[in-house]
Amino acid sequence: MALTPARTMPGVLELLPLDQIAFQRMLDTIRRNYERFGFLPIETPAIEYADVLLTKTGGETERQVYFVQSTGALEQGEKPELALRFDLTVPLARYVAEHEHDLSFPFRRYQMQRVYRGERAQRGRFREFYQCDIDVIGKDGLSIRYDAELPAVIYSVFRELDIGPFTIQLNNRKLMRGYFESLGIADSEQQMLVLREVDKLDKRGAGYVRETLTGEQFGLSAEVAEKILAFVQVRSASLADAFGKLDALGAGPEALEQGRAELKEVLGLIRDFGVPETHFALNLSIARGLDYYTGTVYETTLDEHPQIGSICSGGRYENLASQYTKSKLPGVGISIGLTRLYWQLREAGLVDTARSTVDVLVTQMDAAQLPAYLAVANELRAAGIATEVVLEGGKLGKQFKYADRAGIRFVVVLGEDELAKGVVTVKDLRREDQFEVPRAELVRTLRVELEQAAVMG
Amino acid sequence: MALTPARTMPGVLELLPLDQIAFQRMLDTIRRNYERFGFLPIETPAIEYADVLLTKTGGETERQVYFVQSTGALEQGEKPELALRFDLTVPLARYVAEHEHDLSFPFRRYQMQRVYRGERAQRGRFREFYQCDIDVIGKDGLSIRYDAELPAVIYSVFRELDIGPFTIQLNNRKLMRGYFESLGIADSEQQMLVLREVDKLDKRGAGYVRETLTGEQFGLSAEVAEKILAFVQVRSASLADAFGKLDALGAGPEALEQGRAELKEVLGLIRDFGVPETHFALNLSIARGLDYYTGTVYETTLDEHPQIGSICSGGRYENLASQYTKSKLPGVGISIGLTRLYWQLREAGLVDTARSTVDVLVTQMDAAQLPAYLAVANELRAAGIATEVVLEGGKLGKQFKYADRAGIRFVVVLGEDELAKGVVTVKDLRREDQFEVPRAELVRTLRVELEQAAVMG
Repeated sequence: MALTPARTMPGVLELLPLDQIAFQRMLDTIRRNYERFGFLPIETPAIEYADVLLTKTGGETERQVYFVQSTGALEQGEKPELALRFDLTVPLARYVAEHEHDLSFPFRRYQMQRVYRGERAQRGRFREFYQCDIDVIGKDGLSIRYDAELPAVIYSVFRELDIGPFTIQLNNRKLMRGYFESLGIADSEQQMLVLREVDKLDKRGAGYVRETLTGEQFGLSAEVAEKILAFVQVRSASLADAFGKLDALGAGPEALEQGRAELKEVLGLIRDFGVPETHFALNLSIARGLDYYTGTVYETTLDEHPQIGSICSGGRYENLASQYTKSKLPGVGISIGLTRLYWQLREAGLVDTARSTVDVLVTQMDAAQLPAYLAVANELRAAGIATEVVLEGGKLGKQFKYADRAGIRFVVVLGEDELAKGVVTVKDLRREDQFEVPRAELVRTLRVELEQAAVMG
Repeated sequence: MALTPARTMPGVLELLPLDQIAFQRMLDTIRRNYERFGFLPIETPAIEYADVLLTKTGGETERQVYFVQSTGALEQGEKPELALRFDLTVPLARYVAEHEHDLSFPFRRYQMQRVYRGERAQRGRFREFYQCDIDVIGKDGLSIRYDAELPAVIYSVFRELDIGPFTIQLNNRKLMRGYFESLGIADSEQQMLVLREVDKLDKRGAGYVRETLTGEQFGLSAEVAEKILAFVQVRSASLADAFGKLDALGAGPEALEQGRAELKEVLGLIRDFGVPETHFALNLSIARGLDYYTGTVYETTLDEHPQIGSICSGGRYENLASQYTKSKLPGVGISIGLTRLYWQLREAGLVDTARSTVDVLVTQMDAAQLPAYLAVANELRAAGIATEVVLEGGKLGKQFKYADRAGIRFVVVLGEDELAKGVVTVKDLRREDQFEVPRAELVRTLRVELEQAAVMG
């Protein structure tokens, strides 16, 4: 039989086991923190009805959808009625609308699953990737205070992920809208176009953006262009600074006043939630592409790696599920795109291959002593120590080499000598050290070693 | 805008949060035990190239495949080149062949992901379901001892899942093949047909099966039919009994002798792995449909719920990835179909809705005191206690009701009185009890309560 080349499609991130362990640890950390803040897990099917998924979308998103057909449907030449989810927000909307009467509101859910997008194949673009989302959904209303809780969760997650200093940056769509209105740019389409130009500030420079805004397409006055550039460059260095800069915007239309009041309340509460002032700031350039957001918007950046862009984004929306239900379901949510984040951290040298999940390898000196090796492994496992036993045998040197290559730190040797003396030899492959312990103290000793290793890294 | 009905396709199991928590706890238990035995995690993409997935299959499986197409491919009327995985074994074969030179052998992997099958819509049949697999893959060879390790893992998993007494049942395809040969049924196709008839024993009774075997289609003698019926009814009550019954089969062709020797070695080692004799047994009726298995085969059943069928199955195979690589990769593996298992346990009343992952709800008596509530929540979270804070306010009675409905056991009340006295009132909604603790002792007290709750259930 001719061999089929073993390969995966472009745009998927398939990891070797030790990298998978590093990735899994990040997932675990995120989940632990989401749960610590009282978010509840849900999972939704990867396959949904296409008409359910595609009610609201159009344009770019719809073009990236993967459609699904069973063999039967395909043979009958039917139009596909199924599709893979492209985010977790639409499935959340469907879930809340479908199970509305079985849920308690405010509904606080987390969801960590893969989503699918038919992106063009390109380095760093993924067709399958994890999203790790939290949202709080209210019924009829939802206090602005929840807008301050999500940054507290973000802070908790990224502090524990330990990937360097980061800043949660906030803006408010109402504030932006109001400010633009005050400059005579009232049309929201036009506001988005201006923002898109302003987004080029870092790449093209202020001169280019100023020229475009005052040019034919936009026809803004030099004064207005200057005000826009000044506005989007507002950043705060502390809570007091943020309040000062918000006040310095001066009086404006209702939307601006409302946005300012919301931002002030949210910023103040974030501090009450225990987030240090070093870790959150005003950034009036943040708009988030989606028309979806109506109030608070967030982005999070790594201070030392701005090129990575936002590692956690989200915001407040008016109505989650208007396409499925007449209930009014306002909410606020954030999303971490973990596959992309992991990949970028690895590119930047910020995540290592993990130590193995396997703590100990019990070697095999003599097949006849297998029951003794298995008894040791049983004890270790009962104590929660992940243990592999060499069942195949072979030279001891080869067994050590296997452990080393597999990232297993501790190797247990039980030879004739050890068995006679009632001891065990433990080799620490990391420290290139070895020591003997009485058989009865093996579990305790390894526990201490492993706890130290967990702390010391 | 007309509303789109919020719904999912038939054959998916979407859970409410408290059920999702129960499900997640089962996943966690399985993962913890897989890791404890030194298995390493991998994840593969849900979407694979169709030609890679469908090299070996045909018939039923291929008819159940979901094909995937991006919008662009669909519009061009192309034949789909992508498909969703229908199990984790084919992706494992592809993975090992693709990454062969980066893996250490024996390669011990676990994988817990969803798979997709275009099953007919039917109660208890799932189109999307979790498989939780472990396999050990050798290069060129793999010791039979690994066949004994997997039952030790199964034992560890199901003991901890705590869903009642269970028995891991073993057979060996070589033994079966040899025994059938000794009866003059040498053709493996014919052997499978006979086994399929024998499988109807429970449903149709011995009379029916005997008649069929001696009838026109098979044309076996009454004596041979009787021997087959006796063979497949062999069960052991202990290790000694298993050895006795294997010996009682008498001498036979090479395959039988080899199968018997393997079974004896495996059974003996399972005991050395620490599995009590009450939890594993010989069952010579087990064949496992797949032609794939060549030696040891396993099934696991709940003693008190035989109607559920096998909850964990697998076996030994000669060559994992012959369609992708010339390397010889023998292996042994098992799989738990967790979605189906969870569903069946729930149907049988064997799993409850879980307690919430949220341990404590901090109520809101007075919005002005929010910073105090948040400070309490921060302390609790820092101590690893999952805590939700009521941010919205409203009547205290309504807040209690929310906690109760959401399955949160402990509610913290910090009113004017409590704040003045430096105490906190804790309501235990489960025991319908409440008590006051000094503010400084809250964390310690709740930790003790939660530990007790975890032990007592």
